[in-house]
Amino acid sequence: MTPLVSIIMGSTSDMPVMEAAAKYLNDMQIPFEINALSAHRTPDLVAKFAEQAEGRGIKVIIAAAGGAAHLPGVIAASTVLPVIGVPIKGTMGMDGWDSVLSIISMPPGIPVATVGANAAQNAAILATQIMAVGDKAIRDKVADFKAKLANKITKANEDLAKIKYDYKTN
Amino acid sequence: MTPLVSIIMGSTSDMPVMEAAAKYLNDMQIPFEINALSAHRTPDLVAKFAEQAEGRGIKVIIAAAGGAAHLPGVIAASTVLPVIGVPIKGTMGMDGWDSVLSIISMPPGIPVATVGANAAQNAAILATQIMAVGDKAIRDKVADFKAKLANKITKANEDLAKIKYDYKTN
Amino acid sequence: MTPLVSIIMGSTSDMPVMEAAAKYLNDMQIPFEINALSAHRTPDLVAKFAEQAEGRGIKVIIAAAGGAAHLPGVIAASTVLPVIGVPIKGTMGMDGWDSVLSIISMPPGIPVATVGANAAQNAAILATQIMAVGDKAIRDKVADFKAKLANKITKANEDLAKIKYDYKTN
Amino acid sequence: MTPLVSIIMGSTSDMPVMEAAAKYLNDMQIPFEINALSAHRTPDLVAKFAEQAEGRGIKVIIAAAGGAAHLPGVIAASTVLPVIGVPIKGTMGMDGWDSVLSIISMPPGIPVATVGANAAQNAAILATQIMAVGDKAIRDKVADFKAKLANKITKANEDLAKIKYDYKTN
Amino acid sequence: MTPLVSIIMGSTSDMPVMEAAAKYLNDMQIPFEINALSAHRTPDLVAKFAEQAEGRGIKVIIAAAGGAAHLPGVIAASTVLPVIGVPIKGTMGMDGWDSVLSIISMPPGIPVATVGANAAQNAAILATQIMAVGDKAIRDKVADFKAKLANKITKANEDLAKIKYDYKTN
Amino acid sequence: MTPLVSIIMGSTSDMPVMEAAAKYLNDMQIPFEINALSAHRTPDLVAKFAEQAEGRGIKVIIAAAGGAAHLPGVIAASTVLPVIGVPIKGTMGMDGWDSVLSIISMPPGIPVATVGANAAQNAAILATQIMAVGDKAIRDKVADFKAKLANKITKANEDLAKIKYDYKTN
Amino acid sequence: MTPLVSIIMGSTSDMPVMEAAAKYLNDMQIPFEINALSAHRTPDLVAKFAEQAEGRGIKVIIAAAGGAAHLPGVIAASTVLPVIGVPIKGTMGMDGWDSVLSIISMPPGIPVATVGANAAQNAAILATQIMAVGDKAIRDKVADFKAKLANKITKANEDLAKIKYDYKTN
Amino acid sequence: MTPLVSIIMGSTSDMPVMEAAAKYLNDMQIPFEINALSAHRTPDLVAKFAEQAEGRGIKVIIAAAGGAAHLPGVIAASTVLPVIGVPIKGTMGMDGWDSVLSIISMPPGIPVATVGANAAQNAAILATQIMAVGDKAIRDKVADFKAKLANKITKANEDLAKIKYDYKTN
Repeated sequence: MTPLVSIIMGSTSDMPVMEAAAKYLNDMQIPFEINALSAHRTPDLVAKFAEQAEGRGIKVIIAAAGGAAHLPGVIAASTVLPVIGVPIKGTMGMDGWDSVLSIISMPPGIPVATVGANAAQNAAILATQIMAVGDKAIRDKVADFKAKLANKITKANEDLAKIKYDYKTN
Repeated sequence: MTPLVSIIMGSTSDMPVMEAAAKYLNDMQIPFEINALSAHRTPDLVAKFAEQAEGRGIKVIIAAAGGAAHLPGVIAASTVLPVIGVPIKGTMGMDGWDSVLSIISMPPGIPVATVGANAAQNAAILATQIMAVGDKAIRDKVADFKAKLANKITKANEDLAKIKYDYKTN
Repeated sequence: MTPLVSIIMGSTSDMPVMEAAAKYLNDMQIPFEINALSAHRTPDLVAKFAEQAEGRGIKVIIAAAGGAAHLPGVIAASTVLPVIGVPIKGTMGMDGWDSVLSIISMPPGIPVATVGANAAQNAAILATQIMAVGDKAIRDKVADFKAKLANKITKANEDLAKIKYDYKTN
Repeated sequence: MTPLVSIIMGSTSDMPVMEAAAKYLNDMQIPFEINALSAHRTPDLVAKFAEQAEGRGIKVIIAAAGGAAHLPGVIAASTVLPVIGVPIKGTMGMDGWDSVLSIISMPPGIPVATVGANAAQNAAILATQIMAVGDKAIRDKVADFKAKLANKITKANEDLAKIKYDYKTN
Repeated sequence: MTPLVSIIMGSTSDMPVMEAAAKYLNDMQIPFEINALSAHRTPDLVAKFAEQAEGRGIKVIIAAAGGAAHLPGVIAASTVLPVIGVPIKGTMGMDGWDSVLSIISMPPGIPVATVGANAAQNAAILATQIMAVGDKAIRDKVADFKAKLANKITKANEDLAKIKYDYKTN
Repeated sequence: MTPLVSIIMGSTSDMPVMEAAAKYLNDMQIPFEINALSAHRTPDLVAKFAEQAEGRGIKVIIAAAGGAAHLPGVIAASTVLPVIGVPIKGTMGMDGWDSVLSIISMPPGIPVATVGANAAQNAAILATQIMAVGDKAIRDKVADFKAKLANKITKANEDLAKIKYDYKTN
Repeated sequence: MTPLVSIIMGSTSDMPVMEAAAKYLNDMQIPFEINALSAHRTPDLVAKFAEQAEGRGIKVIIAAAGGAAHLPGVIAASTVLPVIGVPIKGTMGMDGWDSVLSIISMPPGIPVATVGANAAQNAAILATQIMAVGDKAIRDKVADFKAKLANKITKANEDLAKIKYDYKTN
Repeated sequence: MTPLVSIIMGSTSDMPVMEAAAKYLNDMQIPFEINALSAHRTPDLVAKFAEQAEGRGIKVIIAAAGGAAHLPGVIAASTVLPVIGVPIKGTMGMDGWDSVLSIISMPPGIPVATVGANAAQNAAILATQIMAVGDKAIRDKVADFKAKLANKITKANEDLAKIKYDYKTN
């Protein structure tokens, strides 16, 4: 199947974090691809990827990077597709502050849709919300997913209700 | 015309910043609406707005807020539409750090597509990129807009070339 | 017994931190309840909770949340009861800076009484200090609790006095 | 009339900020007092003030301070009354970060109900919410005040509706 | 022997850090005392300690505290003795940023000589440098201690010299 | 008269800030000197200054610097005299954060007594407190100065008392 | 003359800051060029520039950018020439923190020689120090420039010496 | 062989980090030396080292330091050689923020080429890029090294391609 979402990460060391994005898309039965491309080590491949993604049928790009995280912005520079940036908070650098600020503070004209540090699943959910704008089937899947979020809380409350204190009342 | 993009701001004091989003959408001839709704002062209206936006034909929501900026996240909680968050960096609070962090660090399940502090135009560009995924006409407008960004740089270089130094060479 | 204090947390993963609030209230024999409610996953339940809390006899609400911590502010928006916010400093996000700033920087009109990161016991103490304003029995319990704080220091000094150095003098 | 709320500030240079607290209490017809007391320049007076406040009929203390803002915490150490801390963001020091962190990170046992930087009115609103727990008349005033907050937004929207764009729709 | 330096800490949990100060003073044969006193839990004792320290023969006070670290400043408020502040970087709070800023940003008139986070030995060295201003014997001890610091580096270089690389030259 | 305090600044642009230190010492009738010496532009002069200061009768050094503020630490490396560091918060660099951290985080063995950003007067007060340890005349001057600090607050309260509100009570 | 240094800036709004780099190189009679190229608006031109710079005789590249400052890193990715990065601290974004972190935290393999925020002259000095490694004439110019830095301080001290205080001694 | 690069570290505890610089230079067959020198504990040796490095044939200096990291700047003050600064992010101090800011914010006239926190290998690569400006053999080695960086990414992608998901497409 032709992939609709392309997950790109700056280094394969980001894979344990980005796994959650792949898992969500797989569960939602959205065709996707995963690749590693470095804005700094393979700049030509990144430019080529960005320029060709739309033509290959990609609808949304999820780009993850840590440190001086240029990958999402560099891709956004060469495509009209919406690019979702995932700041990776690794063991190196400035505890994620560098990743977040390198992705969010894009110059006028080239936005990157930034999610929270390491928020890979949220990036994938956002990708499906974006595709849902023009695709009723995906829209219904997303609506279904969001409805289920409340259930976890309801179940969690049942657990809390079991905790006993002398003066707690339920 | 039915609005496709809904711009919401937490306070009308955010209007001077958000003006740039309205201007871009107007230039791109995308029907839009602008309203002020506070997550804290009008919570019922916010919930109602979020629940009804999709049914009214809105495709993307742009939500701007400053300080403890809850508006984008609270709207995202009650809609499947993609929500773009614009952190407002005002004169109060912690110089924009509170706005950025209050919008970007959303919990699993409820992403907000965050752009840079005060990046209202970028939010509007991102909104059109999102609609472009399923709309060829908007897609072509966005591609046209992005192509023109390079021209400004070219023109800027012509200005730089006119600066004279003894040892500068052009 | 009707609960006087309602402890709300954004996720049951916050329970190990909030345990200290429950323990203090239990020790002080103040009836309380504990629930998990998410500003983003169960917005309707949060609004309903906030609107009904006062009518159910709740006097003070303690709301804990991490990351883009909207729960305390969203509850404060729909009640006249004082809301105490506890920023949760978890393993995700920006090391508690997002939680603190998302809770403290509330807009004019909707204050949240913010305590320190993970300061669950302090939130519960503050709750009793607030109730003590109009309740002599609780006031005396709080006064008694605060008097005992000094004793720990006195005992601690006895331990320090036992450390021997050649030139330390006690 | 006996004051119910005591506003204390570390320096009279904080008065332009704290004016908003006084104005709110005056509008709400809550008797209050305003004094300057420095944790560092008049420690004896601060201790005496804190120890005697409850006996004089004070119900809530609002303490404002900038820089290494010890005043709220030092007062909280010597009273069972709830103490609301207002971090002052002045021209000196570290742009309010020192004030916020000096007030919020109180040790176990001695909470300070911290509001946002320079959030003097919010501190006063919180004071009335606290008193409202045991005072029906104040409770109704606060409820009335909160209800009016929504009106400002409604009026603000009427202004926004007047802005004309070619493609804006209302 | 009458103590010349008084080490005060806000909590006995600071002792593992402050041990280095005690050890240095002991090695330098400077009589000292160690006590725990909390600005918030034992305010009366702190005031009494600060007022009486000079009369008891204390020359320098070293005060250590974490979080909203008010102890050094509160002591400095009630004595003419120089007070050295040691910000404790514990597991609670904001990773030492609260301690550093709560100690360093003192208001005009009441300085605290702040050293680095957890820099207990440096605080003790500074105490001896201060006493050395008027005491030749202590001055010579400090000079001797500082001279020895260079030796460690010389020895360290001998270790580095033993590391072998093909192209390293020594 | 032989100077007892030496004020050193990294650049004459720091003079408007350091003026307050000079003024205090002059008012206290403590002989002092002021010089500009750069750790980076005149390293030899700095080393010579640091090595000779004690021999010239200097008792305390006050060193002010901005940005990568190395001057206080570099001087402290070559003298047994106590060195007070004043972080300058200028228009360049990172808003004083670089100055504060460059001065406070000294390595083991070489403390700098750091005061708050731009706290020139506090540095001078600390210098006199240090000299007061071994000099009764200076001690009495400092005690006198500190006693007067309280008076300003008392006078400030008189001004506050004049402000009229309907419900303010004094 | 063939330029040896190429100054690139992300936007012509950076020119007022970068002027100082041009001025220094002109004073040192080092042939240079200045251009504006955006990593995001003209990615193809940037790649082409980086790939061809060495062949055109450029020895060092100075790249300035603000916000999510990708330009220096993107250029460094496509050249073996040393790239000096100048973080621009503009009115937008996060007060220079985004620029500094976006430039300094480069991934393994692709360093950028980062100077301080807005430190355009220092970038140019560093460029000449780099060229001086293999060029005796430039080396002597740099040595001469550095020698003159001390003179400014000497002259500054003469000005300080003229300030009169009762108790200042010079 | 005469060393071309001199690696200096403020403490031998920095050696595990700096090992990567030594390893790279060794692999590239660039003669180098490693020493520990402290700006604060051995200021005379640092000055002597800086003044003599150029005469001994050193082309580039790599200086690593943590905390109040003065070593790179102090060396840069006394040599015309380019100095590369490596901020060490240790367990002490402010999590690397102090090291980064102490090195990067150098005053006008004395640049330090700063790399990322703990980026020892990048410092060594930058050193070879600097020497490559005037040395064709080194230039070719660096070009070769940079070309190989892309290969790692290509290989990484082969690993990613092996991960199986139902809806992933490659």
